Amino acid sequence: MYLYFMKPTTLKEIADKLNISTSTVSKALKNYPDVSKKTKDLVNDLAKTLNYKPNAFALNLRNKESKTIGLIIPEIVHHFFSSVIKGIVSEAEENGYLVIILQSNESYELEKKQIDLLLSQQVDGILISLANNTDDFTHLNEVIAQDKPLVMFDKIAKLVRCSKVIIDDRKAAYDATQHLIDSGCKKIAHFRGPHLAQNAIDRFLGYKKALLDNHLPFDESLVFFCQCDDDSFEEGVQNAQQLLKDHNDVDGIFITNDLIAIGAISAFNKLHIKIPEQIAIVGFSNWLMSAVISPSLTTVDQPGFLMGKTAFKQLYKEIKDRKANRPILFEEIILPTFLIKRASTKHRD
Amino acid sequence: MYLYFMKPTTLKEIADKLNISTSTVSKALKNYPDVSKKTKDLVNDLAKTLNYKPNAFALNLRNKESKTIGLIIPEIVHHFFSSVIKGIVSEAEENGYLVIILQSNESYELEKKQIDLLLSQQVDGILISLANNTDDFTHLNEVIAQDKPLVMFDKIAKLVRCSKVIIDDRKAAYDATQHLIDSGCKKIAHFRGPHLAQNAIDRFLGYKKALLDNHLPFDESLVFFCQCDDDSFEEGVQNAQQLLKDHNDVDGIFITNDLIAIGAISAFNKLHIKIPEQIAIVGFSNWLMSAVISPSLTTVDQPGFLMGKTAFKQLYKEIKDRKANRPILFEEIILPTFLIKRASTKHRD
Repeated sequence: MYLYFMKPTTLKEIADKLNISTSTVSKALKNYPDVSKKTKDLVNDLAKTLNYKPNAFALNLRNKESKTIGLIIPEIVHHFFSSVIKGIVSEAEENGYLVIILQSNESYELEKKQIDLLLSQQVDGILISLANNTDDFTHLNEVIAQDKPLVMFDKIAKLVRCSKVIIDDRKAAYDATQHLIDSGCKKIAHFRGPHLAQNAIDRFLGYKKALLDNHLPFDESLVFFCQCDDDSFEEGVQNAQQLLKDHNDVDGIFITNDLIAIGAISAFNKLHIKIPEQIAIVGFSNWLMSAVISPSLTTVDQPGFLMGKTAFKQLYKEIKDRKANRPILFEEIILPTFLIKRASTKHRD
Repeated sequence: MYLYFMKPTTLKEIADKLNISTSTVSKALKNYPDVSKKTKDLVNDLAKTLNYKPNAFALNLRNKESKTIGLIIPEIVHHFFSSVIKGIVSEAEENGYLVIILQSNESYELEKKQIDLLLSQQVDGILISLANNTDDFTHLNEVIAQDKPLVMFDKIAKLVRCSKVIIDDRKAAYDATQHLIDSGCKKIAHFRGPHLAQNAIDRFLGYKKALLDNHLPFDESLVFFCQCDDDSFEEGVQNAQQLLKDHNDVDGIFITNDLIAIGAISAFNKLHIKIPEQIAIVGFSNWLMSAVISPSLTTVDQPGFLMGKTAFKQLYKEIKDRKANRPILFEEIILPTFLIKRASTKHRD
């Protein structure tokens, strides 16, 4: 069907109809004291009748505020990240902010371009979780140089001077590995994330430290790398098969995310390897499905929704502090995690 | 740590340093013909040195374009919707648009407020999937009255005059039910979505029609309602248990989404009901986990990513058509779905 549409009402139309100037209309709408009550009433009534909406961009230009923030996230279709997005969006909306969302697809090049885009769009602040291959931080320092509030969350760069909202990946991984050791595992493998990702590095270090603290040998050939991208499930399957070929005496695995862990469980189920009797498994993130698969997965609960809310709150605080010309205090906020023990590990009380 | 920051460079600073007017600087940056090449070079070099960025809001105000669109979605943490978001964001970015994302939490009241917010923010267009309880469309008609491009997807209102991107829910549900009948099921239950949601209605009607076309009796007591919210898994568990109590001779269930279906499978597994021998199950949406659970779930593949891309493309087309004062042609785009047969149903070739 073909249709033509009404154009939005302008200040000039209201002024023309009432035979007054547009500046009087503008002042009347803003309740300036130098406009009579009679004129104000006339203007307001007509504005209502014509469904006049003030031009938000004009308003924003004056306030030097866009009331929007930018969010760059590596991947949208991911239980943890979509929980973070939900936390950010809900907290932002509660405080009158809109969220522009961009996905870096785990690409440093795209992430860099997106930072430029958000700066040119004059968002009031930026929230970012880094791509796995980001190892140059010039684009982030540019945000800081432009006096634009920046808060990093989850996948952060330790060297960038801004606030950060994270979990203690090293401690969480240590506790997860310790749980495997406590339940009797002697030869524990690790499926880790990419080389450059800070959280992957920290989880690996936590795993390694737990082994050494318990006088178990650290063996590099038991550490498998994962890309942690769209094929995570398949990576879990492949690594599980390879691990069995290379080391059929492994009795535990600490895995850097639940989807890879679920891939591994699926592979072991098919090969009739008993979980946890032959191989115990701990995942990371407490994805919705971890409670549901068979056997259910012991995992580290990673508070995505809370992380999103906290990251926005910190950004909002810095936006307000800058506006008030208050000094900015960078904070590193560490959210608690805890191990959820389920059927994929043995429990000794 | 405390830090103070550099303010962004302004046109005036460049003008002062070169001892020329700000309007000359502005013209030089825009390559106007009435500014000499020498001045242009001086201005451009200094702008680069000082890292000058044009004010995007000022530019947008002039173009009457914000190059942002608004997206209202019932729920972010949901495999299908996060796939849609990913499709929209990637297609928008390719075309130079940013996406503001809002979550209605399946609430009509919130959705209404969000439409107002997006209109006041002067986005160039709006994409929306309706909340389950939206049964008044005044807020959507307001968008249309303001000549703002609007495209609905997935959960749409048939009566609102705008473009729509959907699947043929009725046909998909018919085919899913027919597959249960073809594999020998005689008494088929349905776990449906909420009363008002158009897709829930259409899936129910497809189920009912397949029964009647195959001369199977339609029995209302075999239809269970679900809220399809955060507790979907639990709804599946509860409904499965209730169904067994009420009708222990049911031999098939068509379920309106995969997460509810996975809840049902989990409940039946615990009760040692054999799937598909005793009860066959078909889900809807082809959520990532459907291939992974045991038994794997036969389901309707719902193309979320493609739906997102298609919805943005249609919106972008309408934005361009309006800009060029071309008439707008509303389209109803129906994306194909197909049934993925897995282990939760019996297959007869």
